[in-house]
Amino acid sequence: MPDNQTHQEAPSIGVVRESGADERRVALVPRAVASLIAKGLDVVVESGAGAEALMGDDLYLAAGATIGDAWSADIVLKVAPPTDTEIARLKAGSTLIGFLAPRNTENKIAALQNAGIVGYAVEAIPRISRAQVMDALSSQANVAGYKSVILAASLSTRFFPMLTTAAGTVKPASVLVLGVGVAGLQALATAKRLGGRATGYDVRPEVADQVRSVGAQWLDVGIDAAGDGGYARELTAEERAQQQTALETAISTFDVVITTALVPGRPAPRLVTAAAVHGMKPGSVVIDMAGETGGNCEVTVPGETVVINGVTIASPLNLPSTMPEHASELYSKNLTALLELLVRDGRLDPDYSDDVVALSCVTRDSVSNRI
Amino acid sequence: MPDNQTHQEAPSIGVVRESGADERRVALVPRAVASLIAKGLDVVVESGAGAEALMGDDLYLAAGATIGDAWSADIVLKVAPPTDTEIARLKAGSTLIGFLAPRNTENKIAALQNAGIVGYAVEAIPRISRAQVMDALSSQANVAGYKSVILAASLSTRFFPMLTTAAGTVKPASVLVLGVGVAGLQALATAKRLGGRATGYDVRPEVADQVRSVGAQWLDVGIDAAGDGGYARELTAEERAQQQTALETAISTFDVVITTALVPGRPAPRLVTAAAVHGMKPGSVVIDMAGETGGNCEVTVPGETVVINGVTIASPLNLPSTMPEHASELYSKNLTALLELLVRDGRLDPDYSDDVVALSCVTRDSVSNRI
Repeated sequence: MPDNQTHQEAPSIGVVRESGADERRVALVPRAVASLIAKGLDVVVESGAGAEALMGDDLYLAAGATIGDAWSADIVLKVAPPTDTEIARLKAGSTLIGFLAPRNTENKIAALQNAGIVGYAVEAIPRISRAQVMDALSSQANVAGYKSVILAASLSTRFFPMLTTAAGTVKPASVLVLGVGVAGLQALATAKRLGGRATGYDVRPEVADQVRSVGAQWLDVGIDAAGDGGYARELTAEERAQQQTALETAISTFDVVITTALVPGRPAPRLVTAAAVHGMKPGSVVIDMAGETGGNCEVTVPGETVVINGVTIASPLNLPSTMPEHASELYSKNLTALLELLVRDGRLDPDYSDDVVALSCVTRDSVSNRI
Repeated sequence: MPDNQTHQEAPSIGVVRESGADERRVALVPRAVASLIAKGLDVVVESGAGAEALMGDDLYLAAGATIGDAWSADIVLKVAPPTDTEIARLKAGSTLIGFLAPRNTENKIAALQNAGIVGYAVEAIPRISRAQVMDALSSQANVAGYKSVILAASLSTRFFPMLTTAAGTVKPASVLVLGVGVAGLQALATAKRLGGRATGYDVRPEVADQVRSVGAQWLDVGIDAAGDGGYARELTAEERAQQQTALETAISTFDVVITTALVPGRPAPRLVTAAAVHGMKPGSVVIDMAGETGGNCEVTVPGETVVINGVTIASPLNLPSTMPEHASELYSKNLTALLELLVRDGRLDPDYSDDVVALSCVTRDSVSNRI
């Protein structure tokens, strides 16, 4: 049985080239390759896997990898969810680790199960202290939150910092961040760094202290909707109306609004209405980071940048990919840490009694059949 | 004589619409219009003059301006140098204030003289304390210096700030600014704000203290080439060789290089050789702000962004225009201050015994004839 064979000897690790046009990240950077090789694992890298992250095959070779058919490795590491074509290239019984979009109704998890692939979704890693080092959602949200502010500053007709010049003083930009998870907190911190006045809003009052800890103001509209797993629950109709009124008033006073609000498995909540955009001063900017699930802003066109009454509304879909070097570096560390739970004593030997392993394995049914 | 007439009554001020495709600034913002009107002047604004700066005709009307033929005003305010077509629209004997590129061999100053226009070039305002409030070169360089860092952060594959996350620590970006005038100093300050490690270099050792005052390091290569008017003189062949060797070594260690070195009336000095670019790590970024005079980097394509061996070299030509609101606001204050020297007791009555007036008037020959 090929399955048993892979359990007897050191598994090979494959690092494949991403096929998405906008995906510049790579699952494992050369430095991480070197650390796996030092542990006695073989690493096969698809030619050009790191090219878009500006890490050439030569760097992978220097780290000890071979350049070759990474898709038929025992454990394949990837960033974006696989396409059907990509699943067909994986060998039966192999393991795939990456973003698998388990909460997305159109995911490929059933296809992986049918192909006999064991899939670990980084999104399904529980957000507990011990697993923070593997938390790819957080590491990539850090990148996205930082870059959202850089993008806002690029698009703004105004300075972020207060500027005192011989020709007069320019007021600092006021920045409102709606939804304060990892991305929102990093956006607040970055806006503050750059000299802006930052304000955070969330329906989970417990994040107010985190907002204040980065030097930002907390916008309180009197709603408490903390939900499971650190996310918010959906609001009631009454709460939504209360929130909408409060936010419409608040938004009109800000130069920049950055939205990052997500409700797991549901369309993104609409926090910025068309009326709120209409109330903003021309030259203001909205960065909607929830475009992939429809957007937090009513006039968002996911993936596009539109200008309405002089207000720019940008909805970038994959901000981490725009900083491929550091995003890949952090993601590498996440995957390397997860691999340590799966490869024990040099063999692929996942311990399914460990919650981190059990919960991140989203093809568990097929795994159960095999155990 | 029409000339005498304009001296007898309050001159009309015209704010025209810029014709350059990439020029989003406007010479006078509505707030500045209101201040001139409070002084009893008439202001005529060309329809759409502020549109690209997101300041609609309605705002100018609300400030007390009329929308109409701004080109036939007594004093026309502009941003970019006029085209021949635009000069033809000015009335004989009128005054034009704006960037007139007096040091550019292809400027329109002779054309203005031939048309009987009195031109004041903001570039020719002496850089003395009293005239700082009119110093448009400085106000716009502040915008450009800030935006150069935002652009670098947009293009970089890396973070600027140090980031300490569960998945490890990311080193801060190292930023080298070559040429520390107003733009360079603002670039250093902005890079520092954003969390980068900033280093400044200039051939004028006296700016070292300014560099250190914004928390940046000073790169000393042992050259002293301070010149007139706060600018540097051209280096000798020997100094150039010394500088090139020192910079090639230094540049390879930086994530971001921003160049702002100008020598008045001469092509921009070549500070970043092709070899230096070749020595940089893939993913690094060069922002060449001297593209208009040929660039400080040997591989710069003015106005373009090119990638060579994974290093991005961007040469934006008009960064202030990308922040039209604040750039226009500061420029407005510069022009308003200069106007105060030209319009006295409600009449156009320039005092040519004032150095600021005399030196900024670049069509002085024709003026002398008229006085």
